[in-house]
Amino acid sequence: MYRESIKVLDCTIRDGGLVNRHQFDHAFVRRSYIASSQAGVDYFEIGYINSPGLFSPSEYGPWKFCSQEDIHRVIDGVENGAKISVMADVGRVELENVPTCDKSAYDMVRVASYVKGVDKAIALANHFHDLGYETCINLMALSRDQGPELDEAFEQVERESKAQAIYLVDSFGSLYQEDIENLVRRARKHIKTKELGFHGHNNQQLAYSNTIEAIIHNVNYLDASVYGMGRAAGNCTLELLLGFLKNPKFDIRPVLDLIANDYIPLRKEFEWGYIIPHMIVGQLNLHPQEAIDVRKGDQAENYRAFYEKMVSAGLD
Amino acid sequence: MYRESIKVLDCTIRDGGLVNRHQFDHAFVRRSYIASSQAGVDYFEIGYINSPGLFSPSEYGPWKFCSQEDIHRVIDGVENGAKISVMADVGRVELENVPTCDKSAYDMVRVASYVKGVDKAIALANHFHDLGYETCINLMALSRDQGPELDEAFEQVERESKAQAIYLVDSFGSLYQEDIENLVRRARKHIKTKELGFHGHNNQQLAYSNTIEAIIHNVNYLDASVYGMGRAAGNCTLELLLGFLKNPKFDIRPVLDLIANDYIPLRKEFEWGYIIPHMIVGQLNLHPQEAIDVRKGDQAENYRAFYEKMVSAGLD
Repeated sequence: MYRESIKVLDCTIRDGGLVNRHQFDHAFVRRSYIASSQAGVDYFEIGYINSPGLFSPSEYGPWKFCSQEDIHRVIDGVENGAKISVMADVGRVELENVPTCDKSAYDMVRVASYVKGVDKAIALANHFHDLGYETCINLMALSRDQGPELDEAFEQVERESKAQAIYLVDSFGSLYQEDIENLVRRARKHIKTKELGFHGHNNQQLAYSNTIEAIIHNVNYLDASVYGMGRAAGNCTLELLLGFLKNPKFDIRPVLDLIANDYIPLRKEFEWGYIIPHMIVGQLNLHPQEAIDVRKGDQAENYRAFYEKMVSAGLD
Repeated sequence: MYRESIKVLDCTIRDGGLVNRHQFDHAFVRRSYIASSQAGVDYFEIGYINSPGLFSPSEYGPWKFCSQEDIHRVIDGVENGAKISVMADVGRVELENVPTCDKSAYDMVRVASYVKGVDKAIALANHFHDLGYETCINLMALSRDQGPELDEAFEQVERESKAQAIYLVDSFGSLYQEDIENLVRRARKHIKTKELGFHGHNNQQLAYSNTIEAIIHNVNYLDASVYGMGRAAGNCTLELLLGFLKNPKFDIRPVLDLIANDYIPLRKEFEWGYIIPHMIVGQLNLHPQEAIDVRKGDQAENYRAFYEKMVSAGLD
């Protein structure tokens, strides 16, 4: 028996956009959107709603900003399309330019936050909620922030936020299946009235198995991306997740076509996935930035030197 | 606290040899052997001891046959080298040419068998045991053979074989973490006096997480391969496993160098790993051969057609 309350969010364009500065062209994003919609995906996260005053539109593609017009070019005319989600970062959104949900091309806003920034995240998410949007709060880097501040954050989102789901985010791709079980149980001690979500990173090839573990422990909001495309090691792959879920509304076929036609060629241009420096930072429970940087230079395959540097960083 | 009874077996040259017809040159295998030995690996599985009468030595490399001379060229002079393991297939070994263990370059013989062939596997493994070798029996395709014959096989290897470990092999890369837990518990009902082992395939990116699950349930013999090299989707990667294990004798560094210098270049020549047709047969719990075949032809990236064919195969 499948669990109807499970929602799949395709975060490819948003998280994958961190690989290519969100420079997907509109036709590519529209093909992704159509495929995900046909595959039964519930939410299609199309990018960030950053202020164009903060990032240069000549340097970044449209999905760094997600104008209403750009989203409409992707979704208009698509039948039974997935709901559109965008991500909002605290301090980067021009709130005065956000329409109410009934006049907006997007349906859901997710606010990502480190544990220490949860107050601001709650305030921002509640603002969107009051404009009529569905909202989620994504608590990042939970493999790092394991002290009592985490219980306080869980307690606070339960009490103060109007978000429908709180995501547990393994930003460093560092958690094992036992950690997922423990984390979900800990969250559930405080969060009684909202759904839980899980967003994994694949540094140690554990994003999918950790998502399964989350499902086993009644987490219902699940992030995945086409062929795993996402920052650094990428995410749980959408095709694995859709093949696992038993709800007959999910169909892997459109995603298989999309991978063959669009993502195999894209992977030749940009890298993500199981790459040794990303594996190393995942194992060491460190932020991915150093691994991303080393892959851009002439030491990209000097794994030993990178390992020694990261081990030392962990000791400092 | 680490578990000293855990043994790591590096199966790269044996299982990876199924990708390149065992045509690794001696210097390459020696570098692999030195790196694994320095990394603390317990057993280094160097190939099959097939009869040269059954396979052509012009078509297959030396590790399809593993002559004493070939093994000596790899291991002689290496200090603190890992023990050498070879795999023996029922009916393919010239038993009259096998020396006793004290005169042999290898230390362990593993016999792989489907559940239905367990009688012959036990007899073959016992033969090697009586020659002084360490022995294991690897029970293959356990995702398929789940009926009462499996309990009988567990019962029989416990009663009749002299093997020190019985491996549970996920040949199709189809098992999830809950399956591993259930399978280990089921095996343990019958197998009380031998160690258990686990050999996974990575079709669904679950070989490593399933190996962790096996460790949690007290499985002590663990197979892994450098950069995951192995047939089709490959195996649990050795670098992930060594990074996970806490015994200070394990050191990931020599393996990192080996990957950079030898396996990254090799991966450009031969393919293994997360490849969509391999993912599909894993999801559908089917033998990898059809996926291996499709990757060699001009339909290698026609995933939809392959999926439809495999779904139909499962219904026939």
